[in-house]
Amino acid sequence: MSDYPKFAVIGGGSWATAIVKMLSENLNEIAWYMRNETAIEEIKVNYHNPNYLSSVEFDVDQLLLTNDINKAVSYADYVIFAIPSAFLTPEMESLYVSLEGKVIISAIKGIIPETSMIVGEHFNKTYDIPYDNIAVITGPCHAEEVALERLSYLTIACRNEVHAKVIEDCLSSHYIKVKVTDDIVGTEYAAVLKNIYAIACGMAHGLGYGDNFQALLMSNAIREMKKFIKKVHRMKRNINNSAYLGDLLVTGYSLFSRNRMFGNMIGKGYTVKSAQMEMNMIAEGYYATKSAYELNKNFGAKTPIINAVYDILYNGKDPKKTFRKLTEKLD
Amino acid sequence: MSDYPKFAVIGGGSWATAIVKMLSENLNEIAWYMRNETAIEEIKVNYHNPNYLSSVEFDVDQLLLTNDINKAVSYADYVIFAIPSAFLTPEMESLYVSLEGKVIISAIKGIIPETSMIVGEHFNKTYDIPYDNIAVITGPCHAEEVALERLSYLTIACRNEVHAKVIEDCLSSHYIKVKVTDDIVGTEYAAVLKNIYAIACGMAHGLGYGDNFQALLMSNAIREMKKFIKKVHRMKRNINNSAYLGDLLVTGYSLFSRNRMFGNMIGKGYTVKSAQMEMNMIAEGYYATKSAYELNKNFGAKTPIINAVYDILYNGKDPKKTFRKLTEKLD
Repeated sequence: MSDYPKFAVIGGGSWATAIVKMLSENLNEIAWYMRNETAIEEIKVNYHNPNYLSSVEFDVDQLLLTNDINKAVSYADYVIFAIPSAFLTPEMESLYVSLEGKVIISAIKGIIPETSMIVGEHFNKTYDIPYDNIAVITGPCHAEEVALERLSYLTIACRNEVHAKVIEDCLSSHYIKVKVTDDIVGTEYAAVLKNIYAIACGMAHGLGYGDNFQALLMSNAIREMKKFIKKVHRMKRNINNSAYLGDLLVTGYSLFSRNRMFGNMIGKGYTVKSAQMEMNMIAEGYYATKSAYELNKNFGAKTPIINAVYDILYNGKDPKKTFRKLTEKLD
Repeated sequence: MSDYPKFAVIGGGSWATAIVKMLSENLNEIAWYMRNETAIEEIKVNYHNPNYLSSVEFDVDQLLLTNDINKAVSYADYVIFAIPSAFLTPEMESLYVSLEGKVIISAIKGIIPETSMIVGEHFNKTYDIPYDNIAVITGPCHAEEVALERLSYLTIACRNEVHAKVIEDCLSSHYIKVKVTDDIVGTEYAAVLKNIYAIACGMAHGLGYGDNFQALLMSNAIREMKKFIKKVHRMKRNINNSAYLGDLLVTGYSLFSRNRMFGNMIGKGYTVKSAQMEMNMIAEGYYATKSAYELNKNFGAKTPIINAVYDILYNGKDPKKTFRKLTEKLD
């Protein structure tokens, strides 16, 4: 590895843009890969990403912008993936540079559709990255507030303390505080499950349930999340730490969360297909619901909220009736 | 006690009005005491409380309306107090009817200023009510959503199962679900402390912190609450149950919470006095902050959020600087 940390960010969306901004507070050079060539040209000329967090102005001298993933990865010792989980496999297919010895950091909050694995596990099993070289970045953190430099806290999950320290130092700034944990499995599952609960919150809102029920739903969701994660990976963790509860809250209560919006449309009577078309994208939680539901067949955790969301999204069950039944199971 | 449950509700505010509405779904007769004679006359003529939840229409034949607390109390076997904590002592001074044998139910979410006790403890110590005859009603439940008949969940804390069952049956309806617990100390402290955290949320918002920080603050608040309550009364409780976490969330995230509003004004630079004058009332959390802070001198729980709110409200500390210091202690 080089004397100073060499980071590459993979992705051109809002979270990737926010991460580049955080890194640019500390590093003189960051490789930034995105598919969209026009966006790259615009950043070079106008100093901001035209499509996401366009208020953020970059010093382009700091950026090694490229639409060749191999260039970005070969430059870096630390590679941060910040793309939708559904895009990881196709992107990896065009990557021929070896990942050996590099630290792979997942800022993807989803499950890989092809393997039904969380991202860290997927990198380990599919690409032979040792767990020691895998890290996870998690919130509570909306990209929009990073753009505004509003104080936000990140959690870095990594078993290797040296790597964790480098990542922490490179992301920290006057508006970003970083906490380190070794729970790479639990934090990733929390980040995945919270999107399902955000869909549930949106559905409840769309169906006309109010703030009292939303609070009740969140209080049940965190207990359900705890049970689920405990089955997946048993270790001592405080589920009320910010990487779990905080991340759940920032998503479940956010009117801007795409998962909540998607759920809201379903609650209001849109079909899954029409909601996806209307949003012009697919909410991560949609895939996560299926994977979590399938996974839980083996675990057997009591997950009435996940089951209800699954029934509505995948079994065509009526949201109104399904939620009425769900309310009997919550307390 | 009589064959059918005889309830009296003490108070004319929004929470009292909501409780009368809930009871009126199940009981043919409810005694309702409020000081304001004009309001009583208006309810009799126009069927709604002119000052609070005025959309709720009552069948006045069900109501024994009175502005004499003695009449209401002597009628009832179950007396629900739903007035600000600061008004309890003056109201009790005009009560000469004995409370012996009656079940006293606190719907007051505050600390009695004269004794610095939670309401149940105060009734036990000051008026010799045995703990077996004391119950607590707690949320997550905004009165406004009860008025709209939006599904809400209440928790009844009571050590006597027979009393608990009667209260549960009389409050339950198609829009109210009731859960029973025996943790009368913990639920009351949770209801008190959450108002302090709602003030903190308001302050953060007034100071310009965003949703990412709010989620972080809530995640720290529930951990702090757990530590505090554990010191006061050690028993097995899941702090993520709705009476604790749910109640915290519904208050902390509500833009209508008076405690949050009060904190918001302080965060924006109002003095305590001017905020109180502007709101034309005193937020429960203001007193709770002092009592909790004083109490904790004996307990020694780590409560950086309560301490920060205390410093701002009672020591004239600068909100901006105090919060900046607080952010260093949260994670």
